[in-house]
Amino acid sequence: MTRVGVILSGCGYLDGAEIHEATSVLIALARAGVDYRCLAPDITLDVVDHRTGEPTGEQRNVLAESARIARGAIDDVADVNGADFEALILPGGFGVAKNLCNFATKGPDCEVHPKVERVLRQAHQAGRPIGFACIAPALGARIFGSENPTLTIGHDNETAAAIEKTGARHKPVGVTEIVVDTDRKFVSTPAYMENTNPAEVFEGVSKMVAKVLEMAGITTNA
Amino acid sequence: MTRVGVILSGCGYLDGAEIHEATSVLIALARAGVDYRCLAPDITLDVVDHRTGEPTGEQRNVLAESARIARGAIDDVADVNGADFEALILPGGFGVAKNLCNFATKGPDCEVHPKVERVLRQAHQAGRPIGFACIAPALGARIFGSENPTLTIGHDNETAAAIEKTGARHKPVGVTEIVVDTDRKFVSTPAYMENTNPAEVFEGVSKMVAKVLEMAGITTNA
Repeated sequence: MTRVGVILSGCGYLDGAEIHEATSVLIALARAGVDYRCLAPDITLDVVDHRTGEPTGEQRNVLAESARIARGAIDDVADVNGADFEALILPGGFGVAKNLCNFATKGPDCEVHPKVERVLRQAHQAGRPIGFACIAPALGARIFGSENPTLTIGHDNETAAAIEKTGARHKPVGVTEIVVDTDRKFVSTPAYMENTNPAEVFEGVSKMVAKVLEMAGITTNA
Repeated sequence: MTRVGVILSGCGYLDGAEIHEATSVLIALARAGVDYRCLAPDITLDVVDHRTGEPTGEQRNVLAESARIARGAIDDVADVNGADFEALILPGGFGVAKNLCNFATKGPDCEVHPKVERVLRQAHQAGRPIGFACIAPALGARIFGSENPTLTIGHDNETAAAIEKTGARHKPVGVTEIVVDTDRKFVSTPAYMENTNPAEVFEGVSKMVAKVLEMAGITTNA
């Protein structure tokens, strides 16, 4: 039985999942001795050149690109039930705000990919904890805002204000810190929403993963 | 001044740099408080679908794909002098054996990309330590085999035999271990040449990075 699902949105922070955040999640799960499975939607993404930050006009498949981070061990979100995992974790990257939903262009009124939303709602309704890094709390706020969850995206005031329009409450913290919403079982950490480096991201993400595992009642090696 | 150069070969283990290994290198360097710069050649790679392991027929640019791991902070190897860094580090992935050289098809008689070879020779001639993960020691053996360096690629006997044909000596060790060639200032670790997980790769790569920094005389935060 796979215990934790990790939802990816591509491979590369400008058009997909943030690579250091996603890898930090996988290192933290493996270090805890917890089995995981990567998940992603089978949709296209608009490619951005990571040297220049400019769109190339090319399209790629989110599931295929996410498989680079997952080393091939990945499932289509369409094929899973969120309640079948003991926890879900979402690394960030613009892919969350451009591929899993369109928060990047629509803000708090954005649409969420229906199969991603279904998996997250299934997990939440089954009482599973969900961990969010970087911009991923914006997706959580869009889906679960009416429950007034407390989340963090660090110190970006504009994004924080957009998140609060969903009904969510925003708490600013630093990159190596986490925000825990015990009642709703949400754990968030700012990661690359802050001006930081891979080591600090790894530290914050590791704390987020540890708290998610604790909330899920998963006994770890740590 | 950038102190450590990290040579990438794309983004994804089947046609580029192994993502967990490359990220582990960057986390370890950032945690040590050491400034680094990613480097890659401006050449094309043949894309492999990481869901199926099959070639897609598509081509991409190694420098542009490597920029995904580097978050845009990357230079063309053609534009740098290896002696200008205090150390160089090469994560693995098939990209090393398919893009930086053609070891994957030609074995110990392979050709190395001339600008990658120049940068590595410049660093070595200037007495800089070089760290190798996964299959990257095969590239080191091809360039420096006549000096009979001791390297590891773990327990893959066929690859070890190919490496020894260059004049290099192979020492099998486990994923969380390193092989240190003090005279030649080479440090290697098997990483995903072993059947392993991201946490063990991070542990072995972190040891490799720490030893490289020590050999370079770089004072760290650790």
